[in-house]
Amino acid sequence: MSENIRLDGRTCDQLRTITFEPGIAPNATGSVLVSFGNTRVICGATIEKRVPGWMNAQGVEGGWITAEYSMLPYSTHDRKQRDSSKGRVDGRTVEIQRLIGRSMRAALDLKKMPGMTLWIDCDVLQADGGTRTASITGASVAAKIAINRLLADGVLKQNPMEKSVAAVSVGVWQGLEVLDLPYVEDRDADVDFNVVMTSEGEFVEVQGTGEEATFTHAQLDRLLALAKKGIGEISTLQLAALS
Amino acid sequence: MSENIRLDGRTCDQLRTITFEPGIAPNATGSVLVSFGNTRVICGATIEKRVPGWMNAQGVEGGWITAEYSMLPYSTHDRKQRDSSKGRVDGRTVEIQRLIGRSMRAALDLKKMPGMTLWIDCDVLQADGGTRTASITGASVAAKIAINRLLADGVLKQNPMEKSVAAVSVGVWQGLEVLDLPYVEDRDADVDFNVVMTSEGEFVEVQGTGEEATFTHAQLDRLLALAKKGIGEISTLQLAALS
Amino acid sequence: MSENIRLDGRTCDQLRTITFEPGIAPNATGSVLVSFGNTRVICGATIEKRVPGWMNAQGVEGGWITAEYSMLPYSTHDRKQRDSSKGRVDGRTVEIQRLIGRSMRAALDLKKMPGMTLWIDCDVLQADGGTRTASITGASVAAKIAINRLLADGVLKQNPMEKSVAAVSVGVWQGLEVLDLPYVEDRDADVDFNVVMTSEGEFVEVQGTGEEATFTHAQLDRLLALAKKGIGEISTLQLAALS
Amino acid sequence: MSENIRLDGRTCDQLRTITFEPGIAPNATGSVLVSFGNTRVICGATIEKRVPGWMNAQGVEGGWITAEYSMLPYSTHDRKQRDSSKGRVDGRTVEIQRLIGRSMRAALDLKKMPGMTLWIDCDVLQADGGTRTASITGASVAAKIAINRLLADGVLKQNPMEKSVAAVSVGVWQGLEVLDLPYVEDRDADVDFNVVMTSEGEFVEVQGTGEEATFTHAQLDRLLALAKKGIGEISTLQLAALS
Amino acid sequence: MSENIRLDGRTCDQLRTITFEPGIAPNATGSVLVSFGNTRVICGATIEKRVPGWMNAQGVEGGWITAEYSMLPYSTHDRKQRDSSKGRVDGRTVEIQRLIGRSMRAALDLKKMPGMTLWIDCDVLQADGGTRTASITGASVAAKIAINRLLADGVLKQNPMEKSVAAVSVGVWQGLEVLDLPYVEDRDADVDFNVVMTSEGEFVEVQGTGEEATFTHAQLDRLLALAKKGIGEISTLQLAALS
Amino acid sequence: MSENIRLDGRTCDQLRTITFEPGIAPNATGSVLVSFGNTRVICGATIEKRVPGWMNAQGVEGGWITAEYSMLPYSTHDRKQRDSSKGRVDGRTVEIQRLIGRSMRAALDLKKMPGMTLWIDCDVLQADGGTRTASITGASVAAKIAINRLLADGVLKQNPMEKSVAAVSVGVWQGLEVLDLPYVEDRDADVDFNVVMTSEGEFVEVQGTGEEATFTHAQLDRLLALAKKGIGEISTLQLAALS
Repeated sequence: MSENIRLDGRTCDQLRTITFEPGIAPNATGSVLVSFGNTRVICGATIEKRVPGWMNAQGVEGGWITAEYSMLPYSTHDRKQRDSSKGRVDGRTVEIQRLIGRSMRAALDLKKMPGMTLWIDCDVLQADGGTRTASITGASVAAKIAINRLLADGVLKQNPMEKSVAAVSVGVWQGLEVLDLPYVEDRDADVDFNVVMTSEGEFVEVQGTGEEATFTHAQLDRLLALAKKGIGEISTLQLAALS
Repeated sequence: MSENIRLDGRTCDQLRTITFEPGIAPNATGSVLVSFGNTRVICGATIEKRVPGWMNAQGVEGGWITAEYSMLPYSTHDRKQRDSSKGRVDGRTVEIQRLIGRSMRAALDLKKMPGMTLWIDCDVLQADGGTRTASITGASVAAKIAINRLLADGVLKQNPMEKSVAAVSVGVWQGLEVLDLPYVEDRDADVDFNVVMTSEGEFVEVQGTGEEATFTHAQLDRLLALAKKGIGEISTLQLAALS
Repeated sequence: MSENIRLDGRTCDQLRTITFEPGIAPNATGSVLVSFGNTRVICGATIEKRVPGWMNAQGVEGGWITAEYSMLPYSTHDRKQRDSSKGRVDGRTVEIQRLIGRSMRAALDLKKMPGMTLWIDCDVLQADGGTRTASITGASVAAKIAINRLLADGVLKQNPMEKSVAAVSVGVWQGLEVLDLPYVEDRDADVDFNVVMTSEGEFVEVQGTGEEATFTHAQLDRLLALAKKGIGEISTLQLAALS
Repeated sequence: MSENIRLDGRTCDQLRTITFEPGIAPNATGSVLVSFGNTRVICGATIEKRVPGWMNAQGVEGGWITAEYSMLPYSTHDRKQRDSSKGRVDGRTVEIQRLIGRSMRAALDLKKMPGMTLWIDCDVLQADGGTRTASITGASVAAKIAINRLLADGVLKQNPMEKSVAAVSVGVWQGLEVLDLPYVEDRDADVDFNVVMTSEGEFVEVQGTGEEATFTHAQLDRLLALAKKGIGEISTLQLAALS
Repeated sequence: MSENIRLDGRTCDQLRTITFEPGIAPNATGSVLVSFGNTRVICGATIEKRVPGWMNAQGVEGGWITAEYSMLPYSTHDRKQRDSSKGRVDGRTVEIQRLIGRSMRAALDLKKMPGMTLWIDCDVLQADGGTRTASITGASVAAKIAINRLLADGVLKQNPMEKSVAAVSVGVWQGLEVLDLPYVEDRDADVDFNVVMTSEGEFVEVQGTGEEATFTHAQLDRLLALAKKGIGEISTLQLAALS
Repeated sequence: MSENIRLDGRTCDQLRTITFEPGIAPNATGSVLVSFGNTRVICGATIEKRVPGWMNAQGVEGGWITAEYSMLPYSTHDRKQRDSSKGRVDGRTVEIQRLIGRSMRAALDLKKMPGMTLWIDCDVLQADGGTRTASITGASVAAKIAINRLLADGVLKQNPMEKSVAAVSVGVWQGLEVLDLPYVEDRDADVDFNVVMTSEGEFVEVQGTGEEATFTHAQLDRLLALAKKGIGEISTLQLAALS
């Protein structure tokens, strides 16, 4: 792949500038403002000292985790109507919330959080593609901050989060296999993957879709390799943000 | 892998018995009752001679497709409450509806269905794992029946559906990589994939999740190969059902 | 009345072909696919081992019964929108659900089902007039299958269902008093009755409406006699289906 | 039947005191406060100078009528929660609204109300049995007042309401066939009928239910005769209220 | 201010004719029909012998009060759609309900109503401006009737309502500072105040809004003096209605 | 009043530290993060180039303004459930949204924004009392930034916002009349006022409530004077933030 051929000057395997601003919402147990280029997401982690009713009813031990995702109305150029005004949560939002929840569960040992629910909230402040992968990446940092505080305060006796998770998008855009797509690339991509991995290099979730197109096994393998490279770099940045 | 070690006596790479009963709902333009073992889904394809308002508003040409999925209350051993009684569609249902819709779009050229919406409805009559993959597989057959009728009646001038789609689940269960998981395997699987492919052997959608577990690139490659084998067999059965 | 003057060749006092296919939904405690000509309804009976909260709160003994009715989207020529998509159950559906519930209560001695709720679900697969009367008729068969199984399994100690119920429509169409109206007659009928009776020949419910018309006491008496004849024949078919 | 054996001292075939107070809601086109003994209902008739969208869309000519029914929270001894607080209209309310609407349509020739919707609102101020029959009876008076005003103002060119409708309940209570049941009788009745007739003595609607009981054809005939007597008297009172 | 310059012939500091008709809804514990000129509101006060769940959960002692407000559909010249039909309570209604509730709490000592909820329902029968101030004024009377009955019956041991509340609107209309605005003045007012006071002459609530206009401190002081005068007169009428 | 007697060391007439961070949400037309001490609110102003349907229908000229307010789930110590999850907007939120909207309308000449809707969104990032007054104050800044950009771009021909608005709370806490209450004071205040004024020193809105208490005219006058002093200082800070 030749260099500098993407619209924003990046090479195909180059991430956008990724930054973390911890403590953005001081009342949360843990919080961070994560940026993937122009995509900015507020991630809050809050502990509630009870678990869903069905866990008690069914005698399930340990804790629980729930994720909610939302785009703030002014995060897009054309104002996005609030879910609360529409009276329902749209399908895309539901899908993303479930993805964030599953991803976080791969990083957490819920048995070590008895009687607690960890709420993960991701609110998009500025949207420019990859809001779900930025959300997962920020959620992992916010959760770790929260857990470190709960361990320090003695609320938690054991560390339920030995590893972190991070996510990135990869796709096929104008015939190129590219990493971390901004909106203008995502809009026109033929194939679109979201990949979630642990800090230990294992896959947690792979979601690949041919957008009115299809893809081959060989393409899939190359795209996963690209994602792996990106997530490795993101994991390093997450670690730095937490220290 | 040794043979006959699954609970229902199948080998790891063996599908359940798959059957199609076309015409189950005669008022639909096309319909089929698809069975993957004990999982049975009624799939209806109905044509509506208008497109969503936003298509007219934005001047988008061609047709549209929408999929809805539902589990009938008596499809599970413990009665499943209707979405209409709950007053909302749950997250899992939303996710499946979107997956069916995206999968069907890969098989259809909407430009060749001007001014029409194809409604795909999948109602689960009996649930035993793999309801979403059975739904996609049945939806493709029901849609093809509908389109053949519309072509015969002259309502459609061109064939918008040159290929079919089919889907199957693969996963890691008790250390084994297995094809087409029934409920008892699905419940305990460590890794769970849903794979959608065209009749031409291309991937449409790959969704892989580590259920409180993770997976490696090598595992993913073997699971996709297993899915490819299964979908090849299913495509042949679809073709037979349509003739 | 002369013979063979109805659009489908029936005499005025002749039922459509009525059939029962038990076991259509194997996960239900009891189920049947009932057909009144082209009207086909899936009826499922499911037992839940608890009663509504208010019964416990008010100290009411015995069991409970609840009925739900729905038209599958592809049951009509023009696709019928799902209640779950509309976010509410429409008035006609509510009315039919309440009628099915009241009718079933006439056949059941709820005191003999302590601590249990019997759920009756009726999903219309194909609609051609008389879906509510077919639903009641099928519900009675599905409930009896469920109760026989529960008695055999020792879950029930006493038989709460000593009699069955059946229903049929009668009406005035083009000046004729006719039995079991299909859609084309129902649409144009001046007077429309739905009649529910027990297998012992007693009335459970009579609902008669002049559709932008009125009727006399003498007409009402003749229509009820016609309904009585039809329900007698239907009761015999129900009995045969259960043996 | 012996006299004075009902709890309130009435004979079996005696109505409660029925009164009409026209003009209770001066901003309505027509209104009346109707009382059947302690049951009191505010009935408002309002004209809206447009018809539902589907009438225009389908090219249906004439006008429309819609009825809404509600129990005010303080109409019952135990406060009744508002539908708006529950976020949904309950099944009994839906059933009654539809019954009022159908009854009024029997009295009106909608073709003579082109481009207009007649809204009928019935709000129960005090509930003591028979609120639906009082509502229909009051609705007919309120509608007639409204129509007389519209004819006087020249808004209507033709009289769409040549006859009135009235309704009453009859039932079997403690073995007696009784007319116009108050709450204490209605609660314990074995058989419960609501009957709607025109001022010309024709039946509009007959709804008879065995409440956990059944009834014979002979019983039904006697109950209808009782209803006919009562409705005749009510029609005379309606006429007096309008003059 | 000169006399007789308002549209309805009143002087600037003159109230409309204010009347109270107690007992309008006999099943309520207390009720009144209050009229401020053509504005008429049914106010019902009902006692429920339990408190909201959160009070028990948090160990809060005493009783509770909740207010609901609604405009009957025929209270306005153009029919007002029911909240239950819209499926939601609109913003203005929410605002008024909260205002009535806060106002009533100033008159009641909830500690003297242990384990009870007082429901205040205000339903507007005819709307002509000032429905919220009429509602508060009537609610105070209905509540007092209810409390007197509960004290007489020994249900309440102590009197929780030593004082009453009343409310009135004041505003700037066509440059004039006027008391108790009817709809035609309210619609065109530049400044609009709703003022709630106790029978002891203390302020409970002051809500002043410049409708696309602003106001000075001096204007505010004069408007409050005007309100004080009006509320003094209304308190006297409330007292008379209760004797 | 003696100094330094408030919990946070402020004098009674001293504001918290108030700051503005413009451009927090770059996709909005105008945005600002406003802080009143620990209370932080993201305010976004977005232009939509159409007006509500009823304005076209009724032929109302000019533009429109709508405000939405929300507390982010992690803005409070105990996580606040999202309105979208509850399925409804709560009463307090509705009240605040309407207050923000009315306040902004006092600053804007909608006739100079033909065919445009200005959306004001206020999302609370951290809550510590006074979120509604901070929201109004920030909204005014965000709107002004948006309008300046639209004037610069030629989208607006005339300046619809010649003045700004600002708001502050005042109240009686432990016998003291205090300015700009944080949560711990607000929770225990006997009297609570929210005051909105223009940059020209005129009142826009005065909302004063005795929280289970009452207040006198003299108290009200002193509280308004206190508010006036605070708002004067805030207006100066707003002006600085915009330059």
